[in-house]
Amino acid sequence: MTDQAAGGSHRAAPVHTHPDEVSVLTALSALADPVRIQLIRELAGSADWARTCGSFDVPVGKAALSHHLSVLRGAGLVEQRDEGPRRVNRLRRQEFDARFPGLLDLVLRGD
Amino acid sequence: MTDQAAGGSHRAAPVHTHPDEVSVLTALSALADPVRIQLIRELAGSADWARTCGSFDVPVGKAALSHHLSVLRGAGLVEQRDEGPRRVNRLRRQEFDARFPGLLDLVLRGD
Repeated sequence: MTDQAAGGSHRAAPVHTHPDEVSVLTALSALADPVRIQLIRELAGSADWARTCGSFDVPVGKAALSHHLSVLRGAGLVEQRDEGPRRVNRLRRQEFDARFPGLLDLVLRGD
Repeated sequence: MTDQAAGGSHRAAPVHTHPDEVSVLTALSALADPVRIQLIRELAGSADWARTCGSFDVPVGKAALSHHLSVLRGAGLVEQRDEGPRRVNRLRRQEFDARFPGLLDLVLRGD
């Protein structure tokens, strides 16, 4: 067997969905969660790829955080990549805005 | 005891929330449901107060429909009033658009 996990804490490369492939129902469902809204707001306030998965200030455990980030990937909201042992994140703001104009702005305006 | 229900099939007047009092999380949660999206689309295609609760083409029973309409009222999306034995509905499009610009348009564009 190969040792694909050597040096890393993630088992497999993350699977992504482009916003163009996302339905409005999937997008709304992904956004309709307080933890995921918090993740999006933190990512929006950070440079691309600056945030590791462990850097978010959300009140959930590692497994739940992994699930929330998976939902965000599946809705075209977050892109992830592995850099050695770290998995880093970016908000797909431009692509998502092109698909759902104004939706992220509503989430980010914070009222 | 008074007989408030005389002549009507609804027990109490519906309680409403104005869109200005609705959080973005509540709005997104209300919209992130296929039955509620269908209700909103049907209301958007009808004149105000033209639709009775029984007129919607959704695959749910009466109790579930009542719940969905309650969620929509609570998110400032739907207004209801009783006209004799009938409860009729309108989409609060203008008020909701003022609070969450563009959000209903995304739901109604249908892709």
